[in-house]
Amino acid sequence: MDFALSQRALKLSAEVTAFMEDNVYPAEKAVEEELQTRGLEGGDPEPLRAIRKSAKAAGLWNFFIPDREYGPGLTVHEYATLCEIMGRSPIGPRAFNCMAPDTGNMEILAQFGTPEQKRRWLDPCLAGEMRTCFSMSEPGTAGSDPTLLETRAVRDGDEYVINGHKWFTSGGINSAFAIVMAVTDPQAPPHRRASQIIVPTDTPGFQLVRAISVMGETLGNHCEIAYKNCRVPVTNLLGEEGSGFAIAQARLGPGRIHHCMRMIGIAERALELVCRRANTRFTHGSLLAEKANIQQWIADSRIEIDATRLMVLHAAWKIDTIGKREARQEIAMIKVMAANMVMRVLDRAIQALGGLGVSDDTPIARFWRDCRGIRIVDGPDEVHRMTIARRELRKWRRDNL
Amino acid sequence: MDFALSQRALKLSAEVTAFMEDNVYPAEKAVEEELQTRGLEGGDPEPLRAIRKSAKAAGLWNFFIPDREYGPGLTVHEYATLCEIMGRSPIGPRAFNCMAPDTGNMEILAQFGTPEQKRRWLDPCLAGEMRTCFSMSEPGTAGSDPTLLETRAVRDGDEYVINGHKWFTSGGINSAFAIVMAVTDPQAPPHRRASQIIVPTDTPGFQLVRAISVMGETLGNHCEIAYKNCRVPVTNLLGEEGSGFAIAQARLGPGRIHHCMRMIGIAERALELVCRRANTRFTHGSLLAEKANIQQWIADSRIEIDATRLMVLHAAWKIDTIGKREARQEIAMIKVMAANMVMRVLDRAIQALGGLGVSDDTPIARFWRDCRGIRIVDGPDEVHRMTIARRELRKWRRDNL
Amino acid sequence: MDFALSQRALKLSAEVTAFMEDNVYPAEKAVEEELQTRGLEGGDPEPLRAIRKSAKAAGLWNFFIPDREYGPGLTVHEYATLCEIMGRSPIGPRAFNCMAPDTGNMEILAQFGTPEQKRRWLDPCLAGEMRTCFSMSEPGTAGSDPTLLETRAVRDGDEYVINGHKWFTSGGINSAFAIVMAVTDPQAPPHRRASQIIVPTDTPGFQLVRAISVMGETLGNHCEIAYKNCRVPVTNLLGEEGSGFAIAQARLGPGRIHHCMRMIGIAERALELVCRRANTRFTHGSLLAEKANIQQWIADSRIEIDATRLMVLHAAWKIDTIGKREARQEIAMIKVMAANMVMRVLDRAIQALGGLGVSDDTPIARFWRDCRGIRIVDGPDEVHRMTIARRELRKWRRDNL
Amino acid sequence: MDFALSQRALKLSAEVTAFMEDNVYPAEKAVEEELQTRGLEGGDPEPLRAIRKSAKAAGLWNFFIPDREYGPGLTVHEYATLCEIMGRSPIGPRAFNCMAPDTGNMEILAQFGTPEQKRRWLDPCLAGEMRTCFSMSEPGTAGSDPTLLETRAVRDGDEYVINGHKWFTSGGINSAFAIVMAVTDPQAPPHRRASQIIVPTDTPGFQLVRAISVMGETLGNHCEIAYKNCRVPVTNLLGEEGSGFAIAQARLGPGRIHHCMRMIGIAERALELVCRRANTRFTHGSLLAEKANIQQWIADSRIEIDATRLMVLHAAWKIDTIGKREARQEIAMIKVMAANMVMRVLDRAIQALGGLGVSDDTPIARFWRDCRGIRIVDGPDEVHRMTIARRELRKWRRDNL
Repeated sequence: MDFALSQRALKLSAEVTAFMEDNVYPAEKAVEEELQTRGLEGGDPEPLRAIRKSAKAAGLWNFFIPDREYGPGLTVHEYATLCEIMGRSPIGPRAFNCMAPDTGNMEILAQFGTPEQKRRWLDPCLAGEMRTCFSMSEPGTAGSDPTLLETRAVRDGDEYVINGHKWFTSGGINSAFAIVMAVTDPQAPPHRRASQIIVPTDTPGFQLVRAISVMGETLGNHCEIAYKNCRVPVTNLLGEEGSGFAIAQARLGPGRIHHCMRMIGIAERALELVCRRANTRFTHGSLLAEKANIQQWIADSRIEIDATRLMVLHAAWKIDTIGKREARQEIAMIKVMAANMVMRVLDRAIQALGGLGVSDDTPIARFWRDCRGIRIVDGPDEVHRMTIARRELRKWRRDNL
Repeated sequence: MDFALSQRALKLSAEVTAFMEDNVYPAEKAVEEELQTRGLEGGDPEPLRAIRKSAKAAGLWNFFIPDREYGPGLTVHEYATLCEIMGRSPIGPRAFNCMAPDTGNMEILAQFGTPEQKRRWLDPCLAGEMRTCFSMSEPGTAGSDPTLLETRAVRDGDEYVINGHKWFTSGGINSAFAIVMAVTDPQAPPHRRASQIIVPTDTPGFQLVRAISVMGETLGNHCEIAYKNCRVPVTNLLGEEGSGFAIAQARLGPGRIHHCMRMIGIAERALELVCRRANTRFTHGSLLAEKANIQQWIADSRIEIDATRLMVLHAAWKIDTIGKREARQEIAMIKVMAANMVMRVLDRAIQALGGLGVSDDTPIARFWRDCRGIRIVDGPDEVHRMTIARRELRKWRRDNL
Repeated sequence: MDFALSQRALKLSAEVTAFMEDNVYPAEKAVEEELQTRGLEGGDPEPLRAIRKSAKAAGLWNFFIPDREYGPGLTVHEYATLCEIMGRSPIGPRAFNCMAPDTGNMEILAQFGTPEQKRRWLDPCLAGEMRTCFSMSEPGTAGSDPTLLETRAVRDGDEYVINGHKWFTSGGINSAFAIVMAVTDPQAPPHRRASQIIVPTDTPGFQLVRAISVMGETLGNHCEIAYKNCRVPVTNLLGEEGSGFAIAQARLGPGRIHHCMRMIGIAERALELVCRRANTRFTHGSLLAEKANIQQWIADSRIEIDATRLMVLHAAWKIDTIGKREARQEIAMIKVMAANMVMRVLDRAIQALGGLGVSDDTPIARFWRDCRGIRIVDGPDEVHRMTIARRELRKWRRDNL
Repeated sequence: MDFALSQRALKLSAEVTAFMEDNVYPAEKAVEEELQTRGLEGGDPEPLRAIRKSAKAAGLWNFFIPDREYGPGLTVHEYATLCEIMGRSPIGPRAFNCMAPDTGNMEILAQFGTPEQKRRWLDPCLAGEMRTCFSMSEPGTAGSDPTLLETRAVRDGDEYVINGHKWFTSGGINSAFAIVMAVTDPQAPPHRRASQIIVPTDTPGFQLVRAISVMGETLGNHCEIAYKNCRVPVTNLLGEEGSGFAIAQARLGPGRIHHCMRMIGIAERALELVCRRANTRFTHGSLLAEKANIQQWIADSRIEIDATRLMVLHAAWKIDTIGKREARQEIAMIKVMAANMVMRVLDRAIQALGGLGVSDDTPIARFWRDCRGIRIVDGPDEVHRMTIARRELRKWRRDNL
């Protein structure tokens, strides 16, 4: 048992930390203001473009992809550590070309794409020249229950004709293509019904209904998309027909590691801001830092953050050593744990900062709004708890004893 | 002991409920959209103007003011019931001219104002023709600790010269005047140092720094104001010099009742939306309504809402029967209880609605963002708990036994 | 709306409070010690006998029974207030002949008993000369699901022959008779299958298996009973055949009010002990009373206790004014609320008292052990939440709108 | 980073697990019954003596001591894994001579004892022939604040004369000696005032006041001791004068690891019992295992247990690699985390088991009563949170930046 980070991870951590301090944190306000002023259309704000250029030039780029062909070839648990650091800023992951949902899309293209698909879609993404979205959730059905999926892709000669209604297609605006989950064989067993298909966003019939207003703004780029007789060549199929859920699963494991570590980075940032405030804010006879209730919030946040990090790193290590499939229980557990942890830490942070905490003068209020959905996306807490419990219960079935 | 509402309260409740259903709920989206499009400047969106006109014409107006001279003359606990109903919509209180912070300002003008002050400031407010703001919190000091207040009003002949820095002056944009809390005698005992002074917003030196971005938007109209050698005649003093905190206290008691009942209305609205969703949303083999965890959320929300309502009505009844001062403990308790209850109920509602819950397609996400600050404004939870505990501890002091 | 207590309730509250202080609290330790030394057999310890004699002589007796024929004829909400006061001591309810499960048994005998049943069983109970138990729960089936009940009573001539296995038959030792819930007609609709039958404990076939050890002791008098061909005359049937669940329901409503108010009394006692301790215990630079975390516990306990009390009194008032059946939702809500509230308050009390809190030098540790079961008996939290949620959901069904 | 256990730890885990299943679990009821019947005096019940003999013969003995001279010489994190397994039964640690407080006493004797002290006191303990107690807490002062300690040891020639009042001296009955914390130099700086002194329990003036009744029983062997002119030779001093707190600290680090892992074992046992029950108990239309609320309890317990285990192992690894002093923050964090986790898991277990859960037919109710004190002993949650927060706050002090 050895909890120490590898030399490679330590070195990259230091470099990413320095880059964040020198380039990312100082640009947060300018990026936010440009976006608030002009909206999503037009892509990254200028300061963010400059940061991305620097990061790419410095080789701090595409950490996420395990394949040495495309990047540094980090293990899942090594990359996890970087995710935490990048996650400390709302613009951190994008700075290093490590932002969701693109990372997941790039991963599955690398793993399941044909050479032609990789050339056309993956390479520009890795180069940071193309954005993508993932189109799975549907407004009318519970996304966590795959048997309910309604979007259809019907083969017609050399094309798929896609019809359906999606929402929370994150990154819909500014993307070159969507990867769409659609039913290709309604008669197959539930987990073999769907396929993933690459759909360029300029395909006729790809209709952007709206960027959904989420928590008061559309900047989250969570889009509602109508697919109306949307035709793409069959060569746009990712992997084989019917493998849609298998590919989704492949994507989810590491993706959840990344998400969870970003939550940890967010929580650490919030805790730092609380401590700085508590060390200087005086009220009712003492500094906040000296009050037992504030101390409790800080202590509990420290405990919960550290515990979540160990759980995530442990899940990452299991993926690295015995594979995603064997780590499913651990992956489900960290999804629930991290998503709830970060909300508790942020809630305490808001309370500790008072009026400042609900204002947008610190990033805490943004984190609080942005993170609430994490308890819902990629399966709500309740579905993960159900699957975790079922695996636990299975250990103790009568016929197992 | 009799928990039944008075005939008058029952009748008004029915009328306000009907007006909400006929006029207010249907206009929510249009009002929100107009505000999102054009911002606060320019005052109420057109649909809201129309609603207000109807409400005033129907005599559903100014319920809040206990004085029969100005309105129906309801008791605090009678009015509380209406607050809940109006609170169910973000635009409800404004529809009936019962919106904070104007109600509090009107109350203290009615109670402490000179005839001239009433004529000039109160009457137009009651008529719905003037908006107001209340300028108390300061960015540099903890608002709940009055000994820290820094804004100064120095008497110079027949004028006060005000200098200071305020924020979270809610309603700052569109207001005709602010009531400003400022230190008039720094040498006095802490609770006699400050006074409340009426400052027209067009006074030179009244500088609107910004509408603070709170939870991602400036529509909350929480303003930062710099007072720079801002001169007003001494006749703008409200009550007597040094009575600032006494007037603030007088304002707070009933004001907290109102706020708390609005929270209850918000929670009821959220619970209704959860139940409607649960009755129709099918996933993983059953309706949400049939799942034990969703049932628990609904049951706990029902319990917590009903308990909070009884506590608020009880506090209101104490104000009505033995006075604000004797009801201070009850008022502090409901402040903490309601502000925390509504966040729990809303959080469960978001989770039950899933993606829809974080979207702005229902009012839940707005309520969640808007209500978070309630645990902070008018004294954070922690300060109220401190005072509640001190009163409790006092009962059991050795020398009391 | 009027939250004031009636004169009668105020007067009795004062008398019971005085009697508690003069007689009950001072005897707690002696009663506990006698029981710990000699066990349950032999009935009440001598100091408790003396207290009961005094209480009866003072007319502080049988408050629970609404019938003026047998006692002071209090309303449910008037009696509730006394339950709180009596509940402050583990021996309080017994002191005034108001202890469960006897009160429930007396109530249903008064309501459903024949004159002969009343003469033989009710009168001695009211006189304090006979103890009773209620035999409903079964080890093999979930008590909250009546369709699962297995104990059978088969009519054989003028007798019922009872066979079955019960546990948590509280008060089994020292009782003169049990009221047994048994299936009399397995073919009837679920809620008409069972009847309640009076079974003297000296009936052959009434076998006391054991006093179950609960939380480390058997003094709780929760017994496991085997009924083996236990024969009683058909005249021992309470009410009509098939009315077992109806009678159980009739019993439960007021019974839950009483239980909940006792929980409130317990919580008040614990809070008093916490405050006394906090006012005198010094550590790490200040009194506990001055520490923000202890203050939070005290404030939250005060809020939760007061809110629960209002909810219980409101439910009682509904029973008094519109009847048990119409108050079912309120009764279910207080069951969940009070049982959880008291555990939170006690848990905080233990923590505030430190080592003393887990010791039996105060009654807190006993309360903590004794109360944990309240979240389970008479239907676990989860079943009540299910029924509360179903009623709430019913309001918002599509066809209701 | 490598989360795998060492071969040695894996092998011992398997052996201890097998021994538990073959010998310890089956004897639980018999041991409990003998203790309940005859009390503590007389030492271990017969079945436990037999088990200990077997364990010693099998070499499953004294795992706790890191010194290869006395046992297998495990690292702290290797031993931690065994603590979890042993902790699953109330009699597990004693079975393998790894029970508190003896382990701590043996450790400090091994580390600080003179050869003569080791020969006389340590060797018989390691052989399992002598029991010991640790006498630190005082009823009048908060144990977590060392400046308050009142017990005095005054040097008089070649003897110390000890006077003071201790309680929660665990293991007081049946012990051969106590290690007593007493002030030897009241003028020294707070952390140099006290010393640890070995006091044989047959020393005149060592007065056993009582075994404190804790949670309804005295079997916990938590004793109140009066030291009245209790004289021991100065050679009974452990380490040097004034080193009492330093030795206490040395003892606490690993001791907390052990305690925490036992809590994890207890939680695992409870979760197993819940799952077995849920897989077979049918109510309200389905197995408990299929109900979403029960699933949530199981999932949350699984998450919390696993997270706590990783935190404890990480703290143990820090002790192993960089030392106790550097691991103080981690040790404080696991103390809070494990003590609270186990209570939540047990509380859910009780609720899931219903009536059975509060009965002593399973070990859950005993665990629940016994573990509550863990949040208090060795420093209450609140003191640990204070120290954790202070270390966190120190990172962000202005002068650190």
